Amino acid sequence: MGVDAIATPPGAFVSGPVVLREAALFTDLYELTMAASYLREGLTGAATFSLFVRKLPPGRGFLVAAGLEDVLAYLRGFRFSEAAIDYLRDLGRFDAAFLESLRELRFTGDVRAVPEGTVVFADEPLLEVTAAIAEAQLVETAVMNACHFQTLLASKAARAVLAARRRRVVEFGLRRTPGVDAGLKAARSAYIAGATTSSNVLAGLAYGIPPVGTMAHSYVLAFRREIDAFRAFARAFPDATTLLIDTYDTLAAAHKAVAVAREMEAGGHRLAGVRLDSGDLLALSREVRAILDRAGLGDVRIFASGGLDEDEIDRLLEAGAPIDAFGVGTRMDVSADAPYLDMAYKLVRYADRDVLKTSVGKETWTGEKQVYRFRGPDGRFRGDLLALRDEPAPPGGAPLLVPVMASGALVARAPALDEIRARCAAELAALPDEVRRLRSPGSYAVRPSERLVARQRALRATIEATEVRPALEPAAAGAVAPQPGAAGPQPRPEWEP
Amino acid sequence: MGVDAIATPPGAFVSGPVVLREAALFTDLYELTMAASYLREGLTGAATFSLFVRKLPPGRGFLVAAGLEDVLAYLRGFRFSEAAIDYLRDLGRFDAAFLESLRELRFTGDVRAVPEGTVVFADEPLLEVTAAIAEAQLVETAVMNACHFQTLLASKAARAVLAARRRRVVEFGLRRTPGVDAGLKAARSAYIAGATTSSNVLAGLAYGIPPVGTMAHSYVLAFRREIDAFRAFARAFPDATTLLIDTYDTLAAAHKAVAVAREMEAGGHRLAGVRLDSGDLLALSREVRAILDRAGLGDVRIFASGGLDEDEIDRLLEAGAPIDAFGVGTRMDVSADAPYLDMAYKLVRYADRDVLKTSVGKETWTGEKQVYRFRGPDGRFRGDLLALRDEPAPPGGAPLLVPVMASGALVARAPALDEIRARCAAELAALPDEVRRLRSPGSYAVRPSERLVARQRALRATIEATEVRPALEPAAAGAVAPQPGAAGPQPRPEWEP
Repeated sequence: MGVDAIATPPGAFVSGPVVLREAALFTDLYELTMAASYLREGLTGAATFSLFVRKLPPGRGFLVAAGLEDVLAYLRGFRFSEAAIDYLRDLGRFDAAFLESLRELRFTGDVRAVPEGTVVFADEPLLEVTAAIAEAQLVETAVMNACHFQTLLASKAARAVLAARRRRVVEFGLRRTPGVDAGLKAARSAYIAGATTSSNVLAGLAYGIPPVGTMAHSYVLAFRREIDAFRAFARAFPDATTLLIDTYDTLAAAHKAVAVAREMEAGGHRLAGVRLDSGDLLALSREVRAILDRAGLGDVRIFASGGLDEDEIDRLLEAGAPIDAFGVGTRMDVSADAPYLDMAYKLVRYADRDVLKTSVGKETWTGEKQVYRFRGPDGRFRGDLLALRDEPAPPGGAPLLVPVMASGALVARAPALDEIRARCAAELAALPDEVRRLRSPGSYAVRPSERLVARQRALRATIEATEVRPALEPAAAGAVAPQPGAAGPQPRPEWEP
Repeated sequence: MGVDAIATPPGAFVSGPVVLREAALFTDLYELTMAASYLREGLTGAATFSLFVRKLPPGRGFLVAAGLEDVLAYLRGFRFSEAAIDYLRDLGRFDAAFLESLRELRFTGDVRAVPEGTVVFADEPLLEVTAAIAEAQLVETAVMNACHFQTLLASKAARAVLAARRRRVVEFGLRRTPGVDAGLKAARSAYIAGATTSSNVLAGLAYGIPPVGTMAHSYVLAFRREIDAFRAFARAFPDATTLLIDTYDTLAAAHKAVAVAREMEAGGHRLAGVRLDSGDLLALSREVRAILDRAGLGDVRIFASGGLDEDEIDRLLEAGAPIDAFGVGTRMDVSADAPYLDMAYKLVRYADRDVLKTSVGKETWTGEKQVYRFRGPDGRFRGDLLALRDEPAPPGGAPLLVPVMASGALVARAPALDEIRARCAAELAALPDEVRRLRSPGSYAVRPSERLVARQRALRATIEATEVRPALEPAAAGAVAPQPGAAGPQPRPEWEP
């Protein structure tokens, strides 16, 4: 972290250069109403919440887990300041005992997680939080906020990196990322996934990702003539000149770039590259390559940008476009084809009892879990077993979830960003080819354990017997007749302030 | 701003509870390389950059401008700290004169903008920045980052509000917004667009938007029986109880809700509402409404959530679903159908000379502009004129861009959030019906002025004559033969660190 440490107020969450004040209030109000009721009812047992993605987005074969570093920082600093408690008091909803309890509340629970950069699939926990239920509940929103976006971005960026077939991918999207935090995290997530670097200078300071950049169209426009702009840039950065050549006409500008390259050579310097940013990148890259080659500038690289994503990169390289590197921005940084994940943070166990919601279309697996991954003799992933945490480890299966926090304290060394990136690269290399495929990827085998299936089935039967049938049967014939009591006025629902 | 003021370090950007340290580095590196070259070349003239959306996303009829408050805060606090300059020095790209110039650099330019909450269309500037070119260039990334996301979100949320036909819309998406800044801005943008409120507690503290919330499935699961959870919640919040009834079986739970409503009545309280969060919301809302009505609970409201967006709200209400309010989260907060805008910050004038880029498919209007809006006798918008700033105002046209900053200082009172929201409501009400339509909206007439068209045409002809033809003609027959000079080694392009 290259950002100077500054005094941060109690209750702030610090993530690189982004500071969120009163971070305990970065939550949905219902987390607080539930916590207040838990306190009132004496529900203080240990709860385990599991964070996972229910279903992969259409056309996606895998996910890359990211965001854990932020989660752990958030949990370690979790506390309600006096100002936060005052604000909650002013809402007029919470009783004094609850507000008082917030004053000393800290996150004192345990977290098991897959390391950032790990490839995961649907239903597999990215992390499990076990804590007194109020603690585990109150952090839900922030935990998911951190993991959802960063996992979304790392997963998307990995596709661009794979499409680029070892050519460089530069993250370029800062201007259209959703806000300042996303701007930083997009650079970090893309770097984890294998992007070479980023245009984002602050990400350079914060994460040590060396920033890159050349010129915009405005630069060319500010000069009387395009070639004047090229010459000026070469004067300023004679050993790092990449010329943007599509401001007026790409081919005309390529000829000007040749002329400037000549002038640079006369001064003992060489043009590094040209950038294409619009038009038919396949045709233009070929024509520009030919112009450069004819001029003896075979070493001058072609960098392409402008609305790129993994599909377009793949199409260009399939067609043999002579492009050496890609700038990928907006479509990657908002994950345009799949702008969110069906991610959930679900209570799976409370007070030594497995629990299960059976909402239509939203049923998920009960119980605390472990994921075991199996590899073939070639080191490639063969399949995963989604098991209960308390069942014996299967022979040959490597557990993915490891303890990272115990009683609110870190229990594992935080990996450096380059370690996370190296892990991701190894994971992507170990994916079966058909799962790694960009289009219509094959599905990866994630098998639930027999014990998990049996426990789920038993729990579902119990719910059917105790929660569903008894309630539906007496009412079937409209048995509950109107019996207006001596009630007060109908309260205005809270959503009508 | 309800967040306690804290000492923020020089160079930090503060937006509500979000603090971005070293905010001048929240930029693409090329802004800095260009600025360095401008300094070296003596390019210190006034530049005007125009921020606008080139094309509306498919299926969208209008945009709602948002983000100006952040832009102005960013510009006012713009400065490079010593730490930032040290970092740039360490990159080894910049000369001492440039680094020294950053030390005293402030934003001392002018900004004209449409007020937040204003409806705008393609090609219409949301704002124009006029400043010494280096200043105007360096702030590009942050200016666009603020306006892009907030305009995207306000535009999306307005559609949900229109679809809901005066029923309440609650912003619900904090957990899946892209990072902490987006989480806050989503609540603010949705509120501007007419959302009633938000689940986001910190948005309540920061912006005065009263937060709302009830219970999650985890709450129900934490109790032995669903009805125990309902009773416990009613005990804690007897005058603000909305029961989530889809954890196991929605209809079974509706009967339990009736039983609890009875018990509440006996204690002098009344159930406020029930929430549906999964399944067939049309069928379930009808069945639940019937169960409640048969029990004499006609006043108990039905709140619906779960994967909603404007299309689904519209479909439900078209079909007559008895739903009183909607919780709208992820799909709104990532603008799932159109997760980015084709927004650009383009140099349109430099040193008293209009400029124009002619890149294929990316040509935009030259010159500093004003937008004039015309209304019919009914007060509805009739059409806009996109004019040059220096041409006479057309009779009856109301100018949209107003001065908000001059020489780096605010020149207009910052509107309160509720004023912005009221403006947006009035703007949406004044939209022609066909433009406001959710599906296949009619296009709104934005006509360029004759002078603008003439100036654009003349400039394009000049560019064709001076930049394109002369460069292409000599090269047509491969006239530039290889002439390798006495150059140094080929530099490694910057994207290959």
